[in-house]
Amino acid sequence: MNLWKENLIKITPYTAGEQPDKTDFIKLNANENPYPPAPGVIKTITSFKAGSLNKYPDANAVPLLRAIADRFGVSAENVFAGNGSDDVLALCFRAFFNSGKPVLFPDITYSFYPVWCNMLGISFETPHLNDSFNIDPENYKRENGGVVICNPNAPTSIGRGLDFMREILEANPNSVVISDEAYVDFGGVSALPLLKEFPNLAVVQTFSKSRSMAGMRIGYCIAGDELISALRAAKDSYNSYPLDSVAIAAGCASLSDEEYFKQTVAKIIATRDRLTNALRERGFILPDSSTNFLFAQHEKFAARDICEYLKTRDIYVRYFSTPRIDNRLRITIGTDEEIDKLIGAVDEYIGSH
Amino acid sequence: MNLWKENLIKITPYTAGEQPDKTDFIKLNANENPYPPAPGVIKTITSFKAGSLNKYPDANAVPLLRAIADRFGVSAENVFAGNGSDDVLALCFRAFFNSGKPVLFPDITYSFYPVWCNMLGISFETPHLNDSFNIDPENYKRENGGVVICNPNAPTSIGRGLDFMREILEANPNSVVISDEAYVDFGGVSALPLLKEFPNLAVVQTFSKSRSMAGMRIGYCIAGDELISALRAAKDSYNSYPLDSVAIAAGCASLSDEEYFKQTVAKIIATRDRLTNALRERGFILPDSSTNFLFAQHEKFAARDICEYLKTRDIYVRYFSTPRIDNRLRITIGTDEEIDKLIGAVDEYIGSH
Repeated sequence: MNLWKENLIKITPYTAGEQPDKTDFIKLNANENPYPPAPGVIKTITSFKAGSLNKYPDANAVPLLRAIADRFGVSAENVFAGNGSDDVLALCFRAFFNSGKPVLFPDITYSFYPVWCNMLGISFETPHLNDSFNIDPENYKRENGGVVICNPNAPTSIGRGLDFMREILEANPNSVVISDEAYVDFGGVSALPLLKEFPNLAVVQTFSKSRSMAGMRIGYCIAGDELISALRAAKDSYNSYPLDSVAIAAGCASLSDEEYFKQTVAKIIATRDRLTNALRERGFILPDSSTNFLFAQHEKFAARDICEYLKTRDIYVRYFSTPRIDNRLRITIGTDEEIDKLIGAVDEYIGSH
Repeated sequence: MNLWKENLIKITPYTAGEQPDKTDFIKLNANENPYPPAPGVIKTITSFKAGSLNKYPDANAVPLLRAIADRFGVSAENVFAGNGSDDVLALCFRAFFNSGKPVLFPDITYSFYPVWCNMLGISFETPHLNDSFNIDPENYKRENGGVVICNPNAPTSIGRGLDFMREILEANPNSVVISDEAYVDFGGVSALPLLKEFPNLAVVQTFSKSRSMAGMRIGYCIAGDELISALRAAKDSYNSYPLDSVAIAAGCASLSDEEYFKQTVAKIIATRDRLTNALRERGFILPDSSTNFLFAQHEKFAARDICEYLKTRDIYVRYFSTPRIDNRLRITIGTDEEIDKLIGAVDEYIGSH
């Protein structure tokens, strides 16, 4: 009896950051931007002609593709947009990694990569980051079915330069190389200038972090024609309309305000650098961050204990029980006020232990 | 050289209805609702606190799950919501059809089903509809890895009753049976009353048709706990946040105006019945529709020719070159004014041939 139950999927899904069931707390555990989207985004939504929602959206989000293409100086045929960069990355895995050979990505990186591989039946290997949490390009010079580099990497916060990505690309003429650049706007170096040389490079970025639009679900890939065509075929074999009409309009509005974008990113970088110094003064060890979060370990106190203490102060940071990083905290950069409260709570913790 | 190209996906994607590159035409080819969403939907969007979009949406769209659950008298644990019913159905295929045995659905039905099977590596068989385009339940009484019934069926427009679905379910205690009810609100019979008896039944519906929200991308599945858990695991292995914050709020607003929903559906049904009669008076043969579209063949003129003629009058209906239905038109029910223009153009065509 109930044989249907045997056919249900068995899989370990991705676990996102904890969402406490309360509203009045400081949320530094999901790498969200503490500032609102550009004023034009808000105006676009509140003046949206919602009576037109009876019609399907543009299936390829063409107005948004054009806006993204304009900003980066590429053609709209070189842009693909999806329902957040998770959707875009999952479609990239499906569209690009069909060799049967293992795909390579670091052991410590965005933890959705192995989940997508398991879901899609893609084999993978995870070369270790070195002891300073850097990616060693030598590990990516062997036969493989694809390469995924999160740059800057999460949760390490470490960014690498163009020479690093060039070295990876030169070693992999027979694989597609994905540069996952979710955090690149906070001080990382994009691989975009390498697109003309490497038709097997796919650059994936998102509106969720630097554009303060995590709640709107917009991600995109910039790549050569052939990779974009494969992505469109994968999309049209799954869900014809991943981006709704409001998201398409709101995304365009965000791209039209470069000044707000720059100011917001600069504010977060300034707060980040201040927090970096404050934590180091208090005995934390952490690399320089190229992202909107820090990856910090205390020389004396256990990360898990600090994390639990901060929760009692209504401050939520991210703790991973994963081997090698189970004594580190990932702390999202909030507003200056939020970060002041965090520093105060850390002082309380240190003072009382 | 360029071995990376060999690893790109090779697949034939779903083809949606033609979207002419102009704005002033009558669009009866995508089964969209001709009326706007409920006034509360429009108000919710234009008053949306878009400053909060910096935060991720609720990963499971819980406010929307609760609103759907309330409307149908089920628990929120029995509801799953996704990015349009295409996303929900694709996740159902992935979550429920892992037996290796062929999944069964009719030869003539929603043409995305075989595309998802091909994408996900699911084998399938397509029993033929009978000559009057009805599904014969006897064809679904053999060993299988799952059953998908679109009821009312597309593009045939024919709806079947509860006894039909019960017969299918009783014959399939070892498979998950999906009842795809995209069009059910226009006069079909939902399988929802059978949920308590059949824990292997999954009912999928959408906001795109009867709720005039195709542009917002909201679909949902109502099913027993175990099926919903499997769907959530599949979702969390692909994209944690398929529904954006605006869509969640707009969906809730739609459900709060039952009166508008009923009125809109009643208007479309009245227009549909008028068009059915008008077409029959003009020599068309078509079944009674339980949907927001008609599936019509002319006793004398070729469907393709009528379709092409209507385009010259800026009226777009759907023509399929698929065997068995390649002399039929699928005509979406528009406003009364649009349908009057369609009837006028049909009269012109008949009068000039």
